Amino acid sequence: MTNKHSRYQLSEGANNHIQYLNSAPPKVLTSLLAHADVRIDGDRPWDIQVTDPSVYSTVLTRGSLGFGESYMDGYWECHDLSGLMTRLLNARLDEKPLGSARLFIAMHYLRARLLNLQTSSRAFQVGEQHYDIGNDLYEKMLDRNWCYSCGYWANADNLEDAQVAKLDLICRKLKLKPGMTVLEVGCGWGSLAAYMAKHYGVKVHGITISKEQQVMARERCAGLSVDIELIDYRDVQGQYDRVVSVGMFEHVGHKNYDTYFSTLSRCVKPDGLFLLHTIGTEQDGGGVDPWIDKYIFPNGELPTLPTLVGSCKNYFNVEDLHNFGTDYDKTLMAWWDNFKSSWGSLSANYDERFARMWRYYLMSCAGFFRSKRGQLWQVVLAPLDSQEVYRSVR
Amino acid sequence: MTNKHSRYQLSEGANNHIQYLNSAPPKVLTSLLAHADVRIDGDRPWDIQVTDPSVYSTVLTRGSLGFGESYMDGYWECHDLSGLMTRLLNARLDEKPLGSARLFIAMHYLRARLLNLQTSSRAFQVGEQHYDIGNDLYEKMLDRNWCYSCGYWANADNLEDAQVAKLDLICRKLKLKPGMTVLEVGCGWGSLAAYMAKHYGVKVHGITISKEQQVMARERCAGLSVDIELIDYRDVQGQYDRVVSVGMFEHVGHKNYDTYFSTLSRCVKPDGLFLLHTIGTEQDGGGVDPWIDKYIFPNGELPTLPTLVGSCKNYFNVEDLHNFGTDYDKTLMAWWDNFKSSWGSLSANYDERFARMWRYYLMSCAGFFRSKRGQLWQVVLAPLDSQEVYRSVR
Repeated sequence: MTNKHSRYQLSEGANNHIQYLNSAPPKVLTSLLAHADVRIDGDRPWDIQVTDPSVYSTVLTRGSLGFGESYMDGYWECHDLSGLMTRLLNARLDEKPLGSARLFIAMHYLRARLLNLQTSSRAFQVGEQHYDIGNDLYEKMLDRNWCYSCGYWANADNLEDAQVAKLDLICRKLKLKPGMTVLEVGCGWGSLAAYMAKHYGVKVHGITISKEQQVMARERCAGLSVDIELIDYRDVQGQYDRVVSVGMFEHVGHKNYDTYFSTLSRCVKPDGLFLLHTIGTEQDGGGVDPWIDKYIFPNGELPTLPTLVGSCKNYFNVEDLHNFGTDYDKTLMAWWDNFKSSWGSLSANYDERFARMWRYYLMSCAGFFRSKRGQLWQVVLAPLDSQEVYRSVR
Repeated sequence: MTNKHSRYQLSEGANNHIQYLNSAPPKVLTSLLAHADVRIDGDRPWDIQVTDPSVYSTVLTRGSLGFGESYMDGYWECHDLSGLMTRLLNARLDEKPLGSARLFIAMHYLRARLLNLQTSSRAFQVGEQHYDIGNDLYEKMLDRNWCYSCGYWANADNLEDAQVAKLDLICRKLKLKPGMTVLEVGCGWGSLAAYMAKHYGVKVHGITISKEQQVMARERCAGLSVDIELIDYRDVQGQYDRVVSVGMFEHVGHKNYDTYFSTLSRCVKPDGLFLLHTIGTEQDGGGVDPWIDKYIFPNGELPTLPTLVGSCKNYFNVEDLHNFGTDYDKTLMAWWDNFKSSWGSLSANYDERFARMWRYYLMSCAGFFRSKRGQLWQVVLAPLDSQEVYRSVR
């Protein structure tokens, strides 16, 4: 274990286990879990095995944040963690009151409503906290092109093929032609930029807020017609034939949606296209799960569909909307498989608690998509004044 | 000319031509038209040829309603009427104030906001006024299957093929399998019901509010596993594997959207699918153009996308959204070609003023879609609790 990851060592819930120590699970919890057909110490793969009863008080006082933290602490186990999460989300247990836990979620909600969590100065925070964790981790977990977003599994049966299929799907939807200029907003480690430049002969200007991503993306795109800039999307200039943004809208925040779409509408030519690839959900303005917010993606916020199409309606027509959220379940499970099988080498740099955190992250997200509470939308947008006929593809 | 159509004989604008008789066009009008590069008595195909200057006062006092009525009256001509409409809509002249005309449009708007124009008792009105006009007209104008909705021209170059492609696209999107039960809400003259039953082996329950459509649909579906009921959608019972509704949502009205989606969510099985095919637009709650409302589709109202997805979000997940609005331009032009070439026989039952009204209807709608102010959405919806993986097709 390195100092770098020591912040994952202690959870606030760890000192909370007075009330229910060595006691049976409280009835309010067992009856709530029964709605999802989940049992404490049951023998189905998705049942919860409690190893330290402090989990009860933690969950009752801190809700989903405490549930995740007590998993990191090793206070409970589950053989099929993604299956458990799917059941909990299908039964909508996250919406039910549970002691003072709902209050906690409500406070988190208010924080997202009252503050603009995604100001330019805070925007770089997610870059440093999440995307710069360590390239060794992403190298082992992701496909060889380092695509850190949902693959397209319609005609694929492995992660490598699914990610290439996703890259090509985006290029085909954008009707890329040699010589076109493309702005990529949130270019990650450069996989899409490199693919577009190499296979479709376009000139790409990629922007990112992560220094490590910039370095990697420049390496990946060496020799190609691609430049990568470390800049916030609000400061981008120029006009392009195409604009594309994959897995970045989740960090924008509803208070900035209008700025986002108005900025990008200035960046795309009148007869151009803009492809937006984003996770979405059904509950407005609530930010993401408090555990995910604290440990994985600070300041993230998932759009709902009415909010998304309402926010872009003054700038763009929706030409096509493709929901393949269930493919994110497969993608996340594949990432976990890669993580697991590389643990032998990764364990030199990451401790057991980090591994538990990472499993909880990947499996809860898999359950989010498997339950269809989470969606993955690829939306093709055309400027309002465009006269082009658009033909969507799959 | 028959008595049946005598209500198209007189327009309210016909006695209004005092002020500008034999005068030059008012400057407010010419400068407004200049924004759209349209000239009065110009020599381009889309220019307006004024034959009676009463058109000026009519347009200034009655806006788009007066514009349409004075065309019916023969007070102006245009060689390329759909091209003219496209230019007017692209320049957004319909949103600009023009004398007292905007007031008229605003009153129409208020009427739609304050009243529920689509109560059950009024719902049958559109059936009697529009769909029961005369089967001879639709027989000549439409394809051989009598599809009175947008065709799918992605791989078609004529109306017949485009309509069959549309029917098959719907069946493929719905993943129809032999033995499935399908509810069709607004079944028209039975073309889709017959196609689904014949080519995909499903059992169809079609509902309509037009007596003449019911008679025709029953004939078309004779010998197939299809029954056609004359009933309002709000009174429908039972649960089906699939629900489909083509070109009917435009008559529902925003006050009834929640009722519509809650009713149909009860009608579809938990793992089922619902395909909604509807025209949409960008302006909320305003009903349709006053001329269209008066002469073509009484009580119609086009949804916007934020309103549509917002209205269904408590009942359905959006699995797929396909916009092929520019195909409606082609469809409408094909209908006009058929109407024109059949005028020799149709003129026995319809007078010249009806023909002008019909041309104005088809050409203004063609311009609506060509300008992309109008959209055609096919939306595939799954019940919120569905666990099925959906793969969209094109």
